[in-house]
Amino acid sequence: MISDKKIVAIGGGTGLSVMLSGLKESFKDMTAIVTVADDGGSSGRLREELGMLPPGDIRNCLCALANNDLKDIMNYRFTKGELKGHPFGNLAIAAVNEMSDSFVDAVKKMNHLLDTDGLVIPVTNENVKLCAYLENGDIVWGESNIGKRIGKERIDHVELRPRKPSAVKEAIKKINCADAVIFGPGSLYTSIIPNLLVEGITDAIKHSNAIKIYVCNIMTQPGETIGYSAYDHLKAIEKHTYEGIMDYIIANDEGVNDDILKRYESEGAQYVKAEPELFKNSSTKLILGNLVADNPELLRHDVDELIRIIKKCIE
Amino acid sequence: MISDKKIVAIGGGTGLSVMLSGLKESFKDMTAIVTVADDGGSSGRLREELGMLPPGDIRNCLCALANNDLKDIMNYRFTKGELKGHPFGNLAIAAVNEMSDSFVDAVKKMNHLLDTDGLVIPVTNENVKLCAYLENGDIVWGESNIGKRIGKERIDHVELRPRKPSAVKEAIKKINCADAVIFGPGSLYTSIIPNLLVEGITDAIKHSNAIKIYVCNIMTQPGETIGYSAYDHLKAIEKHTYEGIMDYIIANDEGVNDDILKRYESEGAQYVKAEPELFKNSSTKLILGNLVADNPELLRHDVDELIRIIKKCIE
Repeated sequence: MISDKKIVAIGGGTGLSVMLSGLKESFKDMTAIVTVADDGGSSGRLREELGMLPPGDIRNCLCALANNDLKDIMNYRFTKGELKGHPFGNLAIAAVNEMSDSFVDAVKKMNHLLDTDGLVIPVTNENVKLCAYLENGDIVWGESNIGKRIGKERIDHVELRPRKPSAVKEAIKKINCADAVIFGPGSLYTSIIPNLLVEGITDAIKHSNAIKIYVCNIMTQPGETIGYSAYDHLKAIEKHTYEGIMDYIIANDEGVNDDILKRYESEGAQYVKAEPELFKNSSTKLILGNLVADNPELLRHDVDELIRIIKKCIE
Repeated sequence: MISDKKIVAIGGGTGLSVMLSGLKESFKDMTAIVTVADDGGSSGRLREELGMLPPGDIRNCLCALANNDLKDIMNYRFTKGELKGHPFGNLAIAAVNEMSDSFVDAVKKMNHLLDTDGLVIPVTNENVKLCAYLENGDIVWGESNIGKRIGKERIDHVELRPRKPSAVKEAIKKINCADAVIFGPGSLYTSIIPNLLVEGITDAIKHSNAIKIYVCNIMTQPGETIGYSAYDHLKAIEKHTYEGIMDYIIANDEGVNDDILKRYESEGAQYVKAEPELFKNSSTKLILGNLVADNPELLRHDVDELIRIIKKCIE
């Protein structure tokens, strides 16, 4: 049964797009509000050369919701020559952007070209950059530098430049009408929080009657969330928005295969502990699940299980 | 009334694609067989970097026959950064080609993605290069160098390397079943003749019952056809194929605006004279028409008038 509840998902990166492809099967009114703070890789090159907003996260979400054959080539990444490293879909968004009045307009056209279920919307049309203020007072400039940094100094908070870019109106409208707003899964400081710093977004969330659900990552990320429990993730979001923003936090309770865990640990990532006792006096309800997908290579959310839990929260 | 006669158009460049967009309105079974000898510009860069066949001429023809909104961005040409000079559609063909077993296969998928009326087929799947043998014995290598050359030495003939690349089977099949085969409009030595040098194509034309129609250019081209009359154009095709290949040659009989003529002449192009008296004993029937489109900037074929004449030849 496809539900007619109105769902808004907020985030960026591959985590969000994987969840979207699952949500698409269960909800017919889907909106993805996507961060545009990325400045690395192909997106970074296109930003610099064409003065456009980064297409990468948008592309992933468009593909997750797309219905026609064009989606089959959107994620193809060139491996040779001057095009090396560019996913074809980024170039498609770049071409449409060059022919459009704005990035928002270009993404609207891409939704149409890909015949998406629902709508992918960039959170802002402004050329934003992300910077992280560390606990020792240092500042790290640029989204791609935050995850790459080697030091273990914790992030105090992140900010956008310009500080208060305007939200895309359509994004605000969708939040106003939503039955549920889902945050993540995705990188805490570089995919989720940047959306909430855009002027008008957090305010719309606060005044919306939607159920708010945060999907916590399974593993911490070097440079971002070393040592974070599920509770720490939630607190970081609250610090950038307001206390009690989430009705639910969905966290993993399943053990992780030792071999994979060791590999992740060698790359600086750790298992995110749920720590249910910390939520006892919280207005946010912790929901635990066996969320690890059966994948011998990567730790990813089990989308079916995740959607099952989300549906339970909403209905 | 849309005719159900089977039409094959052979050529390359923009001339062919302009005619295709006209033919599409009148015939429902259309095939474009397109040269892959181009080695300049974006096509040349992609050939060199990705080891693929040139997408440019194919792209133009695909767009002419396309029906969905993807065609609106196929011809957008990037103007900045490392993508500068690449039409977006060339990158689309390149991506699909990288994901396909062969260039032919990639073009088939592009027909599907663009929902084309009819079919665009590359004439060969082999990595061919064109060279021109001049009357003084000099050889000019590469399609893009032939039109660019400054000397006035006439072309004796052109050849492909490898000398006898195999034709794509589907192209042969389409010629076998065609009611009419139309050649051009387009550059004589670099868009039309290269197709006829592909093993099997001329033979299929010879044994086909199709009516063969050559659409002669309105102006000569520097480096290719300086001083050529319509008759010279026909003779050059016959020299590379066989005498009597064409049932009809359609040539322009309309005067050209003096200002435009002067500009073309300053770039080394001249008005192509029809010289009807030369066709008196020819098996090829010369058909004259007022073929110049009402365009103050460029000398282009009046597509409606051209299609009207073509229909008269066929029906």
